[in-house]
Amino acid sequence: MTSATYPAPADILAAAARIAPFAHRTPVLRSRSLDELAGAELFLKCEHLQRTGAFKFRGATNAVMALPDDVAARGVVTHSSGNHGAALALAAKLRGIPAHVVVPEGAVASKLAAIAAYGAVLHRCAPTIAAREATAARVQAETGARLVHPYTDPFVMAGQGTAALELLAEAGPLDALVTPIGGGGLISGSAIAATARQPGIAVFGAEPEGAAETFASLRDGSHVTDFVPDTICDGLRGTVGAVNLAAMRAYGVEALLVGDAEVRAAMRLLLARTKQLVEPSGATVLAAVLRHRERFAGRRVGLILSGGNVDLDALPALLPP
Amino acid sequence: MTSATYPAPADILAAAARIAPFAHRTPVLRSRSLDELAGAELFLKCEHLQRTGAFKFRGATNAVMALPDDVAARGVVTHSSGNHGAALALAAKLRGIPAHVVVPEGAVASKLAAIAAYGAVLHRCAPTIAAREATAARVQAETGARLVHPYTDPFVMAGQGTAALELLAEAGPLDALVTPIGGGGLISGSAIAATARQPGIAVFGAEPEGAAETFASLRDGSHVTDFVPDTICDGLRGTVGAVNLAAMRAYGVEALLVGDAEVRAAMRLLLARTKQLVEPSGATVLAAVLRHRERFAGRRVGLILSGGNVDLDALPALLPP
Repeated sequence: MTSATYPAPADILAAAARIAPFAHRTPVLRSRSLDELAGAELFLKCEHLQRTGAFKFRGATNAVMALPDDVAARGVVTHSSGNHGAALALAAKLRGIPAHVVVPEGAVASKLAAIAAYGAVLHRCAPTIAAREATAARVQAETGARLVHPYTDPFVMAGQGTAALELLAEAGPLDALVTPIGGGGLISGSAIAATARQPGIAVFGAEPEGAAETFASLRDGSHVTDFVPDTICDGLRGTVGAVNLAAMRAYGVEALLVGDAEVRAAMRLLLARTKQLVEPSGATVLAAVLRHRERFAGRRVGLILSGGNVDLDALPALLPP
Repeated sequence: MTSATYPAPADILAAAARIAPFAHRTPVLRSRSLDELAGAELFLKCEHLQRTGAFKFRGATNAVMALPDDVAARGVVTHSSGNHGAALALAAKLRGIPAHVVVPEGAVASKLAAIAAYGAVLHRCAPTIAAREATAARVQAETGARLVHPYTDPFVMAGQGTAALELLAEAGPLDALVTPIGGGGLISGSAIAATARQPGIAVFGAEPEGAAETFASLRDGSHVTDFVPDTICDGLRGTVGAVNLAAMRAYGVEALLVGDAEVRAAMRLLLARTKQLVEPSGATVLAAVLRHRERFAGRRVGLILSGGNVDLDALPALLPP
């Protein structure tokens, strides 16, 4: 497994063993009323109940725990809009090594507070990919810390795939699996893991219309990187990685678009019907199943609720009346 | 077991078997950050994830499923501020018998909608105990339906005790158990069940300062019934039943007061730290543990999160800034 390629199924099994002592095996929720609304059998994998409140803890922990001791000792660094930063901070804390997190201006306040609470050093920068990467490179040069990229790192991708393994083990055979698409770590890891466990499963990625570069890339056979995200899904504003896109193509992943209004409605439904607080990025999967009903009618569908980190002061504005 | 007495431990075991085909065995959540805040090990029994969104489904189902066929055929009736009404409606639907629910003006809109959605006939009345009882008596006379009282019915009390049994089975030995106190069905059933399973366990009831008649009754050796409730905990505004109070005394239950501001803060903490939407009545247990820290320091404490039915349009007003 090198940094130029995506992980193999065996790498995901290794990740599952590596993170087992640290990560929660999150529950799978069912809801009769959501099943009725969707006209399908939904299995909700509760990664908003994962440590740090998001699936990101899986990938970060796999990457941190796989480092050789001498490399680990110099610490780790990443740039993240929030959940990966918190995840890497906690994973580093659990291994007893330093963590540096480059955070763009405008990131969600509750996520920054969590990163700091886990003991990481915060490095603020402008909210552009270029500024993030430059700041991370400077920290690397100054500290010798190892970069753990939020979604192109193969150990991160492998770790993210472990949620799908658990979901299939608990739910049994599924016809389809839906995860959000941001940078592509979760969708690519999930596609590899799910297809290995159950060949022929249909894997869908839910993507906001306001950050639909993966949809365009898959449609056009290109890699769209020049776009300005405009969506309430703060975890899905980044640009899909080339390696993640390659894995999605290899595994036949289809992107499904959702609008912010549909995401808000899905968040509200999840609160009302399942009592679960899921962040906008995580609610995209339910929004996708409800918007694209014909794809899922009568089928057994796994949904990865990717995270639950919402600034509660901003919650009223996120819930439609 | 007659209507004048509270159930024995064997009645609660029978209830557990009777409701098993219908009720969820709800999960028990842990939270490192809440444990740190409380200075104790907390085990959160998630009855907000029970069918109908509240523990009330346990008692209602036990009462409905225990009826002889000829009695059941005439249906059931109750008066309820919401959760018991919805629970009885669904239990009756599952048995295929009519349900009549007397609801006081001012009840939470989402709860009324749920009752209607389960197929019950709603009978509105003034928000007084006298009006509720008169209306229920009229419905009984007209239809022959059996009254299933929300908290003094011994089958209801026995059903409510089953959540504590499950909690102890999953969490292992606990030093203390905390449930909300409203009419007293949950706290009395829980005290009987928990003490039978684990003699010596300390059982506490969390009660709003704005509906503190149980606290006063236990303190004064009386049965206070003349009070005007003033609390956001809409499920805890009723008057504690005499049989429930007798059970609480017999089992040494202690009432712990909480203020509405503490309940709001506890609701917010549950959302932020566990991603769970718990209604004000259910959040009283966490509020009680945080206010009365010295009672719980270093101990293993079970908390029954009793329900999660919140009008989402009213949620912003419930969350403190």
